Amino acid sequence: MNFCSNCGSNTIGLIVPQGDNRERYVCGNCGIIHYQNPNIVAGCLPVWEDKVLLCRRAIEPRLGFWNVPSGYLENGESVEDGAKREVWEEAAAKVELDYLITLYNLPKINQIYLQFVGELVGGAFGVGEESSECALFTEKAIPWEEMAFTSSTFTLRRYFENRRLGKKILHRGAYPDL
Amino acid sequence: MNFCSNCGSNTIGLIVPQGDNRERYVCGNCGIIHYQNPNIVAGCLPVWEDKVLLCRRAIEPRLGFWNVPSGYLENGESVEDGAKREVWEEAAAKVELDYLITLYNLPKINQIYLQFVGELVGGAFGVGEESSECALFTEKAIPWEEMAFTSSTFTLRRYFENRRLGKKILHRGAYPDL
Repeated sequence: MNFCSNCGSNTIGLIVPQGDNRERYVCGNCGIIHYQNPNIVAGCLPVWEDKVLLCRRAIEPRLGFWNVPSGYLENGESVEDGAKREVWEEAAAKVELDYLITLYNLPKINQIYLQFVGELVGGAFGVGEESSECALFTEKAIPWEEMAFTSSTFTLRRYFENRRLGKKILHRGAYPDL
Repeated sequence: MNFCSNCGSNTIGLIVPQGDNRERYVCGNCGIIHYQNPNIVAGCLPVWEDKVLLCRRAIEPRLGFWNVPSGYLENGESVEDGAKREVWEEAAAKVELDYLITLYNLPKINQIYLQFVGELVGGAFGVGEESSECALFTEKAIPWEEMAFTSSTFTLRRYFENRRLGKKILHRGAYPDL
């Protein structure tokens, strides 16, 4: 942050505002405080019979690696709507959300993952613009060594655990561990 | 947003960037895209024996109304740490987190609430800087007509439902309804 987005001044300082307890970007001219907060990454693991749908990333970061359809939640969206939109954008597929399986923290990069399990409607999917390939995998066939993010692996492992138990448990995790 | 925080130009336009599907603030000079995304409000309902701890707000909005200790998640924080910090800041109390009870969407104001149930350590609490009063309430004694936010009411109702059932169910909601 080099300039104030409110008044255009270049007198931005990193200071602790009165009544606050941490450093913020504050404009030395107009006094506005520019708060910065973590982003939500919303996603859904689409399930069809004994398989799950994964997408191979056509974009950086981690181009070429497999992922659970997920992406930044947008203003004006619920987490549920964001998760469904991401499945549509990445896999041209529709899901009926079932339950929230994952709250996964990445505090070093200010990301909080919220991922659902959902039913892949009609078992139908395509390949979204951000993917080079989408495919259904049984647990045994999952390319564990080619997963894009630790969050993807976390959600996949917990999903199969839940399925074996016949439960719909929310799992919480973090990288690095809390 | 009147000026670009990167280069200081005042040529900010609301346009759909190439490869995107929604309007963003884009700088006409340096080309940087200024994304805006929802904020997480992290919180925890502290429980002690058959009572829950609420805080009366000493700050706007909803000054004077009662709330489940909650506030904006900060960069570098996990949702768990944010929830515990809010309890400390608002009620000078420590909690042992038990389970995530609430995912509550407020898409019109770009807020996503994530609230836990936790045990109030030792039953001890004070009054934080952002509160004028903190108090333990049985279900019957809760001032339902004086709650600060729909999220507070949602979490409280669901907590007592869960307790009657002996379950730790995550509840999802929204205002307005999805």
